[in-house]
Amino acid sequence: MQIAIALFERFTSLDAVGPYETLSRLPGAETVFVAERPGPVRNDNGSLALVADRAFADVPAPDVLVVPGGPGQSDHMTDETLLAWLRSADATSTWTTSVCTGSLLLAAAGLLKGRRATSHWLALAELGRFGVESTGERVVFDGKYVTAAGVSSGIDMGLALIGRIAGEEQAQTVQLLTEYDPQPPYDAGSPQKAPAHLVEKFRAGSRFGQ
Amino acid sequence: MQIAIALFERFTSLDAVGPYETLSRLPGAETVFVAERPGPVRNDNGSLALVADRAFADVPAPDVLVVPGGPGQSDHMTDETLLAWLRSADATSTWTTSVCTGSLLLAAAGLLKGRRATSHWLALAELGRFGVESTGERVVFDGKYVTAAGVSSGIDMGLALIGRIAGEEQAQTVQLLTEYDPQPPYDAGSPQKAPAHLVEKFRAGSRFGQ
Repeated sequence: MQIAIALFERFTSLDAVGPYETLSRLPGAETVFVAERPGPVRNDNGSLALVADRAFADVPAPDVLVVPGGPGQSDHMTDETLLAWLRSADATSTWTTSVCTGSLLLAAAGLLKGRRATSHWLALAELGRFGVESTGERVVFDGKYVTAAGVSSGIDMGLALIGRIAGEEQAQTVQLLTEYDPQPPYDAGSPQKAPAHLVEKFRAGSRFGQ
Repeated sequence: MQIAIALFERFTSLDAVGPYETLSRLPGAETVFVAERPGPVRNDNGSLALVADRAFADVPAPDVLVVPGGPGQSDHMTDETLLAWLRSADATSTWTTSVCTGSLLLAAAGLLKGRRATSHWLALAELGRFGVESTGERVVFDGKYVTAAGVSSGIDMGLALIGRIAGEEQAQTVQLLTEYDPQPPYDAGSPQKAPAHLVEKFRAGSRFGQ
């Protein structure tokens, strides 16, 4: 089973590494980071670079496709190299997945039309503009399309997908080995839970408008 | 404020990226990945490489020191280049932190003697052998030393540390923007919660012995 995680400049690192750390532990999985060209790809902060070991052209038919998000997503909504690869990889994939604003890239490629999907809470309205039924859920399965909400939600998605692919015990194994027994010291992880003035501040400053 | 995250071959990626994704969002923070030599550093699976932008020698006095763990930790318990850098960076750090078996490296450097600390659940007994009061807690503060349990716990540590450094509202901001509202699809994230036969299987196969 080949798992391909797409990278582009100014991706958000945990969007990619959350699913990576879970899915790459599937027995027999080959996980590969791919980008337009092989080499280091910088994240949104600029202080982290993950190496893409392969070019899109070298990974034409992954079984599982993972598209992270991040501020750089905006620059790629009409990037035909990326979008064409997403479409052709999706044509033969068993699972096509995204984290955060990665769902906007899947939507821009035309892959989510008429489907239920999710995204970062600041991007849900934007996702709806692509003919997607945008939900606020953390992980959404619709057929072979699996989308996760913002940044950290890719860990939950990875475990849920392992459950579907390899069964509950394998997912529990990965959860145990990654000691995923979350104990956030605050309870502000969603717009429903965070202080209202913070939610408003980031809605007002969002690149997607309010 | 300079935050240095140490890398070594066969580190576990989420150990490093969990604290990175949270701490790098501190206003004014400069975050840098460091290793013995600059360049790509491969993780435990071999399919991920993070770039170390600087050598240890180029980052002599970070304010915050983060040491991830992973299978490669075992190879560095007597690595005097790494241990000497940990000691000298710690001499002037404001916070010295670890995730997972990174605490064993801090312990090998002599930095945790007599302190309370934690580690991956499989490594707690090993940590005790270094004169450390080994706890099973997820995040442990003892003075300026902050240690986190296995892999994913570095996210909780990062948020807790942001709260100490910059206050509750800044931590809530980072939690909201990373949408850290965890909803694990299974409840097997600790040895107390996972099926007993899985816990026993991994204890029996642990590189630290039973």
